[in-house]
Amino acid sequence: MTRTSTATPLAPHPDRLFAADPGARAVARTVYDAVADAPIISPHGHVDAALIADDEPFADPASLLITPDHYVLRLLHANGVGLEALGRADLSGTPPGSQARPAGSARRWRDAAEPTPPGRSIWRNLAEHWDDFLATPVRYWFETELHDVFGLTEQPSAANADAQYDHIAALLQQPQMRPRALFDAFGIEVLATTDAPDADLAAHARLAADPTFSGRVLPTFRADAVFDPSRSDWRHVVASVGEAAGIDTGTHDGLLAALRARRRYFIEHGATATDTGVLDAGSMPLTASERARIHTAALEGPSGVTAAEAVAYRHDMLYRWAEMSVEDGLVMQLHPGVLRNHHAPTLERFGPDTGHDLPAVGSFTEPLRPLLESFGTAPGFHLVLFTVDETVFSREIGPLAGFYPAVYAGAPWWFIDTPAAIGRYRAAITDSVSFTKTSGFIDDTRAYCSIPARHDMARRADAAYLASLVVTHEISEEDAVRTARRIVSDIPKATFKL
Amino acid sequence: MTRTSTATPLAPHPDRLFAADPGARAVARTVYDAVADAPIISPHGHVDAALIADDEPFADPASLLITPDHYVLRLLHANGVGLEALGRADLSGTPPGSQARPAGSARRWRDAAEPTPPGRSIWRNLAEHWDDFLATPVRYWFETELHDVFGLTEQPSAANADAQYDHIAALLQQPQMRPRALFDAFGIEVLATTDAPDADLAAHARLAADPTFSGRVLPTFRADAVFDPSRSDWRHVVASVGEAAGIDTGTHDGLLAALRARRRYFIEHGATATDTGVLDAGSMPLTASERARIHTAALEGPSGVTAAEAVAYRHDMLYRWAEMSVEDGLVMQLHPGVLRNHHAPTLERFGPDTGHDLPAVGSFTEPLRPLLESFGTAPGFHLVLFTVDETVFSREIGPLAGFYPAVYAGAPWWFIDTPAAIGRYRAAITDSVSFTKTSGFIDDTRAYCSIPARHDMARRADAAYLASLVVTHEISEEDAVRTARRIVSDIPKATFKL
Amino acid sequence: MTRTSTATPLAPHPDRLFAADPGARAVARTVYDAVADAPIISPHGHVDAALIADDEPFADPASLLITPDHYVLRLLHANGVGLEALGRADLSGTPPGSQARPAGSARRWRDAAEPTPPGRSIWRNLAEHWDDFLATPVRYWFETELHDVFGLTEQPSAANADAQYDHIAALLQQPQMRPRALFDAFGIEVLATTDAPDADLAAHARLAADPTFSGRVLPTFRADAVFDPSRSDWRHVVASVGEAAGIDTGTHDGLLAALRARRRYFIEHGATATDTGVLDAGSMPLTASERARIHTAALEGPSGVTAAEAVAYRHDMLYRWAEMSVEDGLVMQLHPGVLRNHHAPTLERFGPDTGHDLPAVGSFTEPLRPLLESFGTAPGFHLVLFTVDETVFSREIGPLAGFYPAVYAGAPWWFIDTPAAIGRYRAAITDSVSFTKTSGFIDDTRAYCSIPARHDMARRADAAYLASLVVTHEISEEDAVRTARRIVSDIPKATFKL
Repeated sequence: MTRTSTATPLAPHPDRLFAADPGARAVARTVYDAVADAPIISPHGHVDAALIADDEPFADPASLLITPDHYVLRLLHANGVGLEALGRADLSGTPPGSQARPAGSARRWRDAAEPTPPGRSIWRNLAEHWDDFLATPVRYWFETELHDVFGLTEQPSAANADAQYDHIAALLQQPQMRPRALFDAFGIEVLATTDAPDADLAAHARLAADPTFSGRVLPTFRADAVFDPSRSDWRHVVASVGEAAGIDTGTHDGLLAALRARRRYFIEHGATATDTGVLDAGSMPLTASERARIHTAALEGPSGVTAAEAVAYRHDMLYRWAEMSVEDGLVMQLHPGVLRNHHAPTLERFGPDTGHDLPAVGSFTEPLRPLLESFGTAPGFHLVLFTVDETVFSREIGPLAGFYPAVYAGAPWWFIDTPAAIGRYRAAITDSVSFTKTSGFIDDTRAYCSIPARHDMARRADAAYLASLVVTHEISEEDAVRTARRIVSDIPKATFKL
Repeated sequence: MTRTSTATPLAPHPDRLFAADPGARAVARTVYDAVADAPIISPHGHVDAALIADDEPFADPASLLITPDHYVLRLLHANGVGLEALGRADLSGTPPGSQARPAGSARRWRDAAEPTPPGRSIWRNLAEHWDDFLATPVRYWFETELHDVFGLTEQPSAANADAQYDHIAALLQQPQMRPRALFDAFGIEVLATTDAPDADLAAHARLAADPTFSGRVLPTFRADAVFDPSRSDWRHVVASVGEAAGIDTGTHDGLLAALRARRRYFIEHGATATDTGVLDAGSMPLTASERARIHTAALEGPSGVTAAEAVAYRHDMLYRWAEMSVEDGLVMQLHPGVLRNHHAPTLERFGPDTGHDLPAVGSFTEPLRPLLESFGTAPGFHLVLFTVDETVFSREIGPLAGFYPAVYAGAPWWFIDTPAAIGRYRAAITDSVSFTKTSGFIDDTRAYCSIPARHDMARRADAAYLASLVVTHEISEEDAVRTARRIVSDIPKATFKL
Repeated sequence: MTRTSTATPLAPHPDRLFAADPGARAVARTVYDAVADAPIISPHGHVDAALIADDEPFADPASLLITPDHYVLRLLHANGVGLEALGRADLSGTPPGSQARPAGSARRWRDAAEPTPPGRSIWRNLAEHWDDFLATPVRYWFETELHDVFGLTEQPSAANADAQYDHIAALLQQPQMRPRALFDAFGIEVLATTDAPDADLAAHARLAADPTFSGRVLPTFRADAVFDPSRSDWRHVVASVGEAAGIDTGTHDGLLAALRARRRYFIEHGATATDTGVLDAGSMPLTASERARIHTAALEGPSGVTAAEAVAYRHDMLYRWAEMSVEDGLVMQLHPGVLRNHHAPTLERFGPDTGHDLPAVGSFTEPLRPLLESFGTAPGFHLVLFTVDETVFSREIGPLAGFYPAVYAGAPWWFIDTPAAIGRYRAAITDSVSFTKTSGFIDDTRAYCSIPARHDMARRADAAYLASLVVTHEISEEDAVRTARRIVSDIPKATFKL
């Protein structure tokens, strides 16, 4: 694109995120250069395997880059753009003005009556609010991505919104912009997806069987829905897991057997890990009769169990989850402490993953005690702990990883996957437990085209951190380079058994 | 003043708070220079409007600069100077040695029998303990203020205490040191005060009607006392609000109507905001019959309601407060998490605001959920959240402001209004939600003459932060300058509807 | 030792921990040089006085440097080395495979059947895992210690493990490596030990009476076991304290009298302080009849009191502890918030202090309120608060020390005694309360030979922090040098009444 005279250039600096001090910067460059082009190991993310398997062209810039990305949605929403103006369908079917909720919530801050806008209009919203993203990691990734993947050379603005939209839309029709071509161009070596417990993993199987595709796309077993009998979809998922496994899940022992079978199925399709999100990390086991009783009661319907019983069932299941990992070797990823769907009216209208999942206070040491007493020193067991509450890095996760062979300190994630927070994570965790017991970077993304930008950001942030240790003579430059290489390859491979 | 040969110079450096690295310092200077002389917007503070309206000379250095400033008092107290030696009246009337409290508390660590000392003696206490303030923000402001406002060129010390006291005392008699002359000299554009719910706002009215005064001095509606029926002054304030509004507050609906009327009265006198301090941010609404019942019971006396009912009443009131803001457009400021009057013996002897209000653990996401579900997306509603627990910036306030259009991330305040903490706030909040959804600096001060020093400190701290982003190539220098200008003007004006 | 061509040099840099910026580094050097050779004041640690009194040669490198040091043990354990391979005796006597615990915990991740390995084998474990310690404070101290005390010039590795072991083992036979010679060589002026409440303090008495020893080795009274009647050793310790004091502890008043007598005994032997570790800082006093009742019930056996009664008893005892300090002048050190022996199977096999004590959430402001209301302003009372949860520095400890004359902000400790965390502590605490109300560095170590390395690290970290204030013109270089000198001498002497 040619740049108009008034436009602001988009030109990510080759030394971005490195300290200004010339000595520190030179070291950071050396460390970064050693890993800048290393293959991408992505052991935790939310890209759909079918996207790679089908290899269809992407539809349009907005549905690729904005509508599915809750990072972007939430910042636009916070600055006054309604979700209906961002391409999210209104699921409630409620005509404006007819709500039963109290006065305040009944008011909608934008009229929802207008039809779903086309991609071009969504894109304009982003361009007009570009300044509201200044200095956020979301804009940082977006800038790298727009420049490196889509060849843009101007910062988005109201003036160039249509031109940039057209430029990207045209590019998406090119063969080099198809998912598999990008997989190679991005240098992805391993990409782990996240999959439902009843998934058939057909796309994974197609990719594995395809001689023309050499990348590794691995499933991850995520069965949160079976943990919590108070969820509205619990009975459905329990039945569905039983069907997929060919095992009756009408008893708790049946459910455990079915889950073990499904885990084996995932392992046969390349999985090396499970993933679990829970509100809290309680892990107290129940007696066999008690868990059987709650299971049976819960199958009778949502009113069959009390809230306390549902929590006890979930805590027991977390304990069983570790027990299964000790048996079958799947790495156990755990990220407690996210309060889902904070704003009920938005959930009702637009569904989940619409920007109002919020961090809760993190807690690991106490709630994980039963699990760790039983399995914390079990041979081969890997438990990777993630948090969105950074106060636990020096207080809980670092000290736990600094004693238990099983525990690994997961990279900062979601709300804290920023250059500054990565620096604080490294400072806190390295002081406790050095580098070996960490996870390496995880991108955790639904936004396929942001993967290289995110990994590049992490490599730069780690290079800056390692350089800071070199210039204060805490480690040598050779140690820094060697550690940077371990962080992008050996460490994630060992942690996630890749 | 001439400086003696042994005195330590007092000469605030023009580059103070800027990073040492020459590149970063040059950028910080450029950014700071763009806002150094900008008018002061002070949307939250505790200066008395009558001070400006009356425009009387200040009495003496100690009663202007020390006795009313709980920041200064608490540090002197912590270092062994009793409040009675700092000009605070002993309200208890208890002769020493006659207390009923247990042995330990009965001991006073200084004899309270001596008469209230004059200003000169109070000033000597400060001078002798000057080293105990080293590197605190209190000393930082004091140094700027003593140098810029009072023309001192030596650090306070026992040797120069009397001379500096006399110098300031003489200066306070000069016309250019009267409150209105200082208002102009300080470059104040807007000054918001904090006012009781039954206030007549006469001083504000006099200022607004005075053709010789061109500044804006705006009231802020603060009605904490009506929130909490367990307070000893609750019944008095409820009655007094009713009287001021001419509405019977014997029923809860009456109280709500009276509060609405008082808010309108404040709006007519220029108010754009309310301010509320509560121990916790619980916001669960009650049914109309339940809140009516507790109100009636509470009016019968302190024993009329249980502790749990008082809390429920207060949580409901916080919900109503938001509802009223949605109706009348007043910006809602909220600062939960301060435990008032930690040391009961000091409260009894010297009253409140004597240095032992202390931070509690911050919590926003869970307790504000009912309020935000109803009003978080209401058009025009602004809810500014302040905290003294900095762990919530990245975990709660940033993420809330990053989804809810209504939520703004308030500047660090009180215990954390320091250059280093401002930097940590910016790092945490900018990562979450950039700059638009922040409050701009608030000085929150009773110390009139410290206002320019405090705003200057914030401008320097923000310049240093913005420069840190420029030198790591996260934003451009133009973006940094533009953002600094927004922070001191557009952003507070938009947030506080000024 | 001659260095082989492939070995990595071990050469701690003279400017380590100082910022890279040349201006900041020059100031840090100046500040550090002013205190680098100052005598060591160690007011809190766990070296055995008998070690100095007996002055026997150390046995071997592993039992001196590895086996007793839980910092080192936990990192090796976290990286897969079993405690039995590190010289810790298996106390359980349980043959492998016969446990009654559930499946997961029954598995041991290394075979425990092999005999306790000799020191050489233990040393090899450290050398082989040297990279797993990279950039931790444990390695930082170790490097300084190996270089400065033992003259090593190569980083430990598998290749040089035996040679380094032999080098140190030979050195330990030299007279200059005996404990008293090292005491002088380390420049220790005061060394406080930690002692049981029934201790006879014979070693302290021998040292005090020895005209050939001029150092001060002071006992510290630590009586945690008498606080908590739910502990299995409570009855034993209560009886033993009574015996040592010659006072019947069958009543609570008797116990208090015995403790007062034991405190006097410690004071006669040079003690200036007590030390107390509790899970939480609750300090609510009980009535005389209630504490007497619980005491009597507890003496009847573990089942005599409920869990709630045991906690109430402990909270009352913390209150009494402060009361005694007000009476007898002993400085009260308090470090709540450590959860002891997280992993029960390790406790059973290897005993306490084996690396799985873990930080809990810190809390001071609320739980200490009763104690501080009674004693917070008592003349001469010193209460030093330590934490392993750094979130409390700016939220609780700084503000408490910034009002209460009795409260001192203890240095970061245990999990957070790292250069980076010391910087965060200084930033948070100095903002709240400057330097006077801090403790000075405490090494808290069992590892005698690490004392100089630890104090040197703290001096460097403080120099770096003070330099950071100088280059931003917050304090002068003269103030920085003067403050550094106060931190290593005047401040700990005043805080700990040395």
